[in-house]
Amino acid sequence: MAENVGFIGLGVMGRPMAGHLLAKGHRLVVHSRSRGPVDELAAKGAVAASSAAEVARQADVVITMLPDTSDVELVLTGPEGILAGLRQGTTVVDMSSISPSATKQLAALVASRGGAMLDAPVSGGEIGAANATLSIMVGGTRTAFDRVLPILQCMGHPERIVHIGDEPGSGQLCKVCNQMAIGGALAGVSEAFALARKAGVDVAAVRQALLGGFAASRVLEVHGERMLKADYKPGFRAKLYQKDLRIANETAAVHAVAIPATAVVTQLVNTLVAGGGGDLDYSAMGTVVWGEGVKE
Amino acid sequence: MAENVGFIGLGVMGRPMAGHLLAKGHRLVVHSRSRGPVDELAAKGAVAASSAAEVARQADVVITMLPDTSDVELVLTGPEGILAGLRQGTTVVDMSSISPSATKQLAALVASRGGAMLDAPVSGGEIGAANATLSIMVGGTRTAFDRVLPILQCMGHPERIVHIGDEPGSGQLCKVCNQMAIGGALAGVSEAFALARKAGVDVAAVRQALLGGFAASRVLEVHGERMLKADYKPGFRAKLYQKDLRIANETAAVHAVAIPATAVVTQLVNTLVAGGGGDLDYSAMGTVVWGEGVKE
Repeated sequence: MAENVGFIGLGVMGRPMAGHLLAKGHRLVVHSRSRGPVDELAAKGAVAASSAAEVARQADVVITMLPDTSDVELVLTGPEGILAGLRQGTTVVDMSSISPSATKQLAALVASRGGAMLDAPVSGGEIGAANATLSIMVGGTRTAFDRVLPILQCMGHPERIVHIGDEPGSGQLCKVCNQMAIGGALAGVSEAFALARKAGVDVAAVRQALLGGFAASRVLEVHGERMLKADYKPGFRAKLYQKDLRIANETAAVHAVAIPATAVVTQLVNTLVAGGGGDLDYSAMGTVVWGEGVKE
Repeated sequence: MAENVGFIGLGVMGRPMAGHLLAKGHRLVVHSRSRGPVDELAAKGAVAASSAAEVARQADVVITMLPDTSDVELVLTGPEGILAGLRQGTTVVDMSSISPSATKQLAALVASRGGAMLDAPVSGGEIGAANATLSIMVGGTRTAFDRVLPILQCMGHPERIVHIGDEPGSGQLCKVCNQMAIGGALAGVSEAFALARKAGVDVAAVRQALLGGFAASRVLEVHGERMLKADYKPGFRAKLYQKDLRIANETAAVHAVAIPATAVVTQLVNTLVAGGGGDLDYSAMGTVVWGEGVKE
């Protein structure tokens, strides 16, 4: 069933995601800071709105895909923000990766104005967005989840759209967990490869052996390959991963959980970004421990 | 072709491994500190030798499967050790997980006495040993590797017996890398689950969502399941993993490689063992960051 869908934030991720909604026959109202992607989608039939409020006035489901917590707060609560135009019964779906605790507050605000909010951050990067194979982790009521599921299915892999919990922020919390699990795996592989290289052992042979056992992981498979080739074209930019790790550390502090390995991962990524690697793929984290071994 | 194989060290791992060699028709000479497994294998046709030297006198290939570096050093170089009985052309295959640098020295010693040494540490734990599905990472000359491959194939998974490099110690170095990669992944998953739990989010749903994306790993799959069930029956004992991590840290120091994430993993395991968890499966590492959440 075609719906009136609003989409705010047409960046590297949002642009192809919105494109899929249009291609699947939904009526799309879009708004973004930069004119280029708006014009591109308008040429394909989307309606260009002048503000987030204007999007909200015309849509039954409003999707946001923005860089960081403060961006989502502004687009929701700012002047000419979503709340300024929100209609009764509208579902706001925030697909950005932002703070779980801020998400709880925003969801309460949306609810107080007669709407429903879901947090639905994604994993899978630019390739997942382009191919509509994203993993989507959703927090919020089951009713709201079921209501927007057909829309999410236009952008995500059908088996990887998971309702994590009824509590607002559950999806964001899951995304934080995802980034932490990846970070630990990435640091372990990075350090292992650094050691193999310095010890003069064939890193490709090590990777191959490790893939056959308990060390097997998608990180070892995909990012391990990048490390072997020293090919750090993103993929997923280190500066965005740095943001996700900042949220992980903030969230752990909120819940008083010790995350010592994630703290180390954070410092490795901070070092990478401080050294000018913010636009490299985050798997370049390993170059921090490799030192002169960045290039083969 | 049936061979005269010696096997020294019939512990939790060595006992089933030696059993496979016997079952596949090799003539087996065994020696071990404890009488039980020796008698058990002797009852199945193995010859019980009174010392490591005695094993060496009767075997063309001598396998060692011992707890730590010092054990292998003693069994090789001690009075009535392997070197005391070594014949020209004998291949010593050390399948223990020990120091890569000590291995280099021992291999040189064996070579100076007219033998060849391979380091061939395994991964896969007690289950892999019992089912003859171990991963085996081999360092040493290709000639020596090819010579013992049919013997290794009695104990390991045919596709997971990898010749890592000609340099002695390459296999041990690969095993160190394996344990480091696992450690990072395990710490990442542990901290992620700890955060999900403290935040009140369904950990099983998080694990399921993460398995569909880049965080997917055997650690998340198998050890993540253990964590959910709080079932820490080994598996692979934390105190043995502690030993492997000690070797990882020593080896990194030898090569002047920074391994900050592995250092954190080491401290988590040290904390687990210090708290009495040495005989739990190493995946219990997560309980250190979970605090009171050890049991569901």
